[in-house]
Amino acid sequence: GVLGSGDFARSLAVRLVCSGFKVVVGSRNPKRKASLFPAAAEVTFQAEAVKKADVIFVAIFREHYSTLCDLADVLVGKILVDVSNNTEINHHKESNAEYLASLFPACTVVKGFNVVSAWTLQSGARDGNKQVLICSNNQEAKRTVAEIAQIMGFTPVDMGCMSSACEIENIPLRLLPAWKIPIFLALGLFLCFFTYNLIRQVIHPYIREQKNKLYKIPIEVVNTTLPCVSYVMLSLVYLPGVLAACSQLYYGTKYRRFPDWLDQWLQHRKQMGLLSFFCAALHAVYSLCLPMRRSHRYLLIETAVKQAVEKKMTIWVEEEVWRMEIYISVGIIALGLLSLLAITSLPSIANSLNWREFSFIQ
Amino acid sequence: GVLGSGDFARSLAVRLVCSGFKVVVGSRNPKRKASLFPAAAEVTFQAEAVKKADVIFVAIFREHYSTLCDLADVLVGKILVDVSNNTEINHHKESNAEYLASLFPACTVVKGFNVVSAWTLQSGARDGNKQVLICSNNQEAKRTVAEIAQIMGFTPVDMGCMSSACEIENIPLRLLPAWKIPIFLALGLFLCFFTYNLIRQVIHPYIREQKNKLYKIPIEVVNTTLPCVSYVMLSLVYLPGVLAACSQLYYGTKYRRFPDWLDQWLQHRKQMGLLSFFCAALHAVYSLCLPMRRSHRYLLIETAVKQAVEKKMTIWVEEEVWRMEIYISVGIIALGLLSLLAITSLPSIANSLNWREFSFIQ
Amino acid sequence: GVLGSGDFARSLAVRLVCSGFKVVVGSRNPKRKASLFPAAAEVTFQAEAVKKADVIFVAIFREHYSTLCDLADVLVGKILVDVSNNTEINHHKESNAEYLASLFPACTVVKGFNVVSAWTLQSGARDGNKQVLICSNNQEAKRTVAEIAQIMGFTPVDMGCMSSACEIENIPLRLLPAWKIPIFLALGLFLCFFTYNLIRQVIHPYIREQKNKLYKIPIEVVNTTLPCVSYVMLSLVYLPGVLAACSQLYYGTKYRRFPDWLDQWLQHRKQMGLLSFFCAALHAVYSLCLPMRRSHRYLLIETAVKQAVEKKMTIWVEEEVWRMEIYISVGIIALGLLSLLAITSLPSIANSLNWREFSFIQ
Repeated sequence: GVLGSGDFARSLAVRLVCSGFKVVVGSRNPKRKASLFPAAAEVTFQAEAVKKADVIFVAIFREHYSTLCDLADVLVGKILVDVSNNTEINHHKESNAEYLASLFPACTVVKGFNVVSAWTLQSGARDGNKQVLICSNNQEAKRTVAEIAQIMGFTPVDMGCMSSACEIENIPLRLLPAWKIPIFLALGLFLCFFTYNLIRQVIHPYIREQKNKLYKIPIEVVNTTLPCVSYVMLSLVYLPGVLAACSQLYYGTKYRRFPDWLDQWLQHRKQMGLLSFFCAALHAVYSLCLPMRRSHRYLLIETAVKQAVEKKMTIWVEEEVWRMEIYISVGIIALGLLSLLAITSLPSIANSLNWREFSFIQ
Repeated sequence: GVLGSGDFARSLAVRLVCSGFKVVVGSRNPKRKASLFPAAAEVTFQAEAVKKADVIFVAIFREHYSTLCDLADVLVGKILVDVSNNTEINHHKESNAEYLASLFPACTVVKGFNVVSAWTLQSGARDGNKQVLICSNNQEAKRTVAEIAQIMGFTPVDMGCMSSACEIENIPLRLLPAWKIPIFLALGLFLCFFTYNLIRQVIHPYIREQKNKLYKIPIEVVNTTLPCVSYVMLSLVYLPGVLAACSQLYYGTKYRRFPDWLDQWLQHRKQMGLLSFFCAALHAVYSLCLPMRRSHRYLLIETAVKQAVEKKMTIWVEEEVWRMEIYISVGIIALGLLSLLAITSLPSIANSLNWREFSFIQ
Repeated sequence: GVLGSGDFARSLAVRLVCSGFKVVVGSRNPKRKASLFPAAAEVTFQAEAVKKADVIFVAIFREHYSTLCDLADVLVGKILVDVSNNTEINHHKESNAEYLASLFPACTVVKGFNVVSAWTLQSGARDGNKQVLICSNNQEAKRTVAEIAQIMGFTPVDMGCMSSACEIENIPLRLLPAWKIPIFLALGLFLCFFTYNLIRQVIHPYIREQKNKLYKIPIEVVNTTLPCVSYVMLSLVYLPGVLAACSQLYYGTKYRRFPDWLDQWLQHRKQMGLLSFFCAALHAVYSLCLPMRRSHRYLLIETAVKQAVEKKMTIWVEEEVWRMEIYISVGIIALGLLSLLAITSLPSIANSLNWREFSFIQ
């Protein structure tokens, strides 16, 4: 059974019909709404629809839950699936599902399907996340809904009892919250270092020697900026651990909560580390591209011609040779180690490591 | 208990004995077959084996299921595990497990272990997929079989009720079905563009100017072909979305099913995108290798020598410098963005993103 | 309820309180210990604590389990969660949880939370592994503990019945056991090949021609060493399969167990393959860096100047050109194929492949 006639209700009905379920839709105006639903779904009055169905998807807004109170008698003993979402994180004090359960104490309420979009429902779970998070205080009802999700082509995930409903309702509203601060930080650092390098490598030689080095902006200036950002981000990954240790030594206990800013900082370390790796990898690619450039070729030929004309056979500055060899060598090793750290931060790898192995690699 | 004496039955018995289970094997000719099984497994007549066992693995072909009908009385109340596979996808109308259940309505049938090969069973789950997909209409029986799988070293995955059996039986027959069309498409595109570039870069100069440029085939021709393939594949990823939107606008509804060809196309977008990324990454590596080549070195020295002899000190074509700088810069940024898309298509990352985050990144 | 006052007990109490549970701590000396626990947790005598709690975390060492025997009467019917770890793998004959269960047959024992560190408990599951492995012979108790873990922010994983306890207790003691042999092997091979290349490329020219080529050590010598290690490791991946096939042909059966050394070797193939890929990838990066080096630049200019002075316009050794083009081309293709193998060895990808697909890719 499906209660409601919005976008989600219609997509849900389409998918249920496609998966071979018998679907009955409850509407306050079944005649007008019937044309919106697939022909195989029966559209009727709410009370009648509820009577015919065992599992009822409540696809209406939280604000209209109370309009269902007339159906309280026929709803007794049914499984109600709350598929609703909020428009803001932690909008209401109690989750929609818990509110629904409080309105209909004689029903079994299951939270689920809210993490799935109407589009995914309609076109089938193709790419991206196929998981449907489900929670309920009733094991049997949870299992029934999980099996429906499975048959519809989704992967049900048991999230435990009803107290998880709030968390499940917040999930679709998230937009990479852990990445926001680290990304803005990296962008800020990039801008600062880019300006500094632009002045040093392009503007300063222009003012002092009237040399036009504007062509350096797209690659060389960016390439000297990236490792600076990468270094600072990497040091910001390890700094809060030191601060936390100092705080523990200072207060003489490790059971005292860290101040909020330090706690936040500790929680963003993984993202900062990955951004540091991303900058380092880009720096490697940029550096490798340097000898491919036309400007590099011109400068090389110019030097060769100059030496040939002056009959200077060889120039070999041992110090410069060694500096470059060691710089490249250390750079590759550092990038290799950062890659290992980045790989172990993939969820499926991290889950196969125990605490001791994770610490060892870090 | 294990019924059957084929390869799978023997490997199953070996593994069960190794995992500490008491195994009894039922055979129509126990004396002759006993030598095939490990010494710790008891090999006896089918009826006797069934009596002694609570969980019975039916390791015989679907065609021979009916031969078990004599055992119907002793099988009452037992758990039958259907481990069979088909030779073709959707070979029979109903799955093997459902057919077995219809033959023995007094038994509890569980589908499972068919995704595991005899080799994996025998040698233990080492690398590759350790999952054993299980489905049944009986929760208790499913749990019992799941625990047996766990003790045998596999990861049981609950696939819901018996209607999933058909899907589970089709899994071992799959051979990357979603990849076939995109791979042949990419190969076709590669051949076309390769021929074109071969004619343009090697055959044409040879015919017109008698210049032997055959050495360009392994790297330079391939390197100019790869980005063409990558571009076309990437555009084929985004084109069907536009077509789908047009179709929705034209018909004035988003609940109408797309035509089959468009639906298929929409379903292959992820694979096309990954192949596009693969070609782009190869192009990057090929391009980075260009200055390493002996031919590049010879041409560079030749130019330098020519200039030195003619005493032309500097050649600096500003336009060519800028074209190259911008080309490389944009290329790196594009590759970086494609890498992000490729990383989010890893199953474990995709599962940690909600719909909003996935759309944002796309 | 929490029994014990060690580091783990305190962290557990902190986390439980933070997750909204009512916590009662049982101690033999509640007055002295009360200050160690968060204020919201009630600290009292053991017997009293047990009476008030339904689920009791036994956070004491295995050696002290017997001291709980005085509480046997009040413990009847309670759920005991064994969170203990050992100091050595397979230290005792039976797992701690099974030992606890044998001491208190009237209780339901659940193994769990031992894979979580005190630090993770206290600060919340942030990065790394959030899984809590749980096993028990009682489904209901297992589910209760799983829900507690869920509310505490962990991901409960059902590991089946009590016989898995031993395996779960061994997990936190593991330190990449499958990687030890392959890593030492790779290091050994690296040292051998490095010494050989050092003698050939640096020491020999110095002794014979007094040429100082020390600058080659950080990059060129390492770069010629890496592909040797990679090749040998890759061949060691495929060799044991051939040996296993020979052994099966020789003995005329595939049901005979392989000798232990071959079995061990077969089990380390994946790690060897990944190390081979790692060396190959490093070799690619090192090679790509070659033209960036100052020494490469000096040698190039030197050759150009020499030719210009001698008025030799062009040098073009067709054989050398072709050797390099083919070498690079084959190298890129090999690296591309190795990358595909490495990607399919990621747990989340491997789990989405069936046996047939996995073999096909291998």
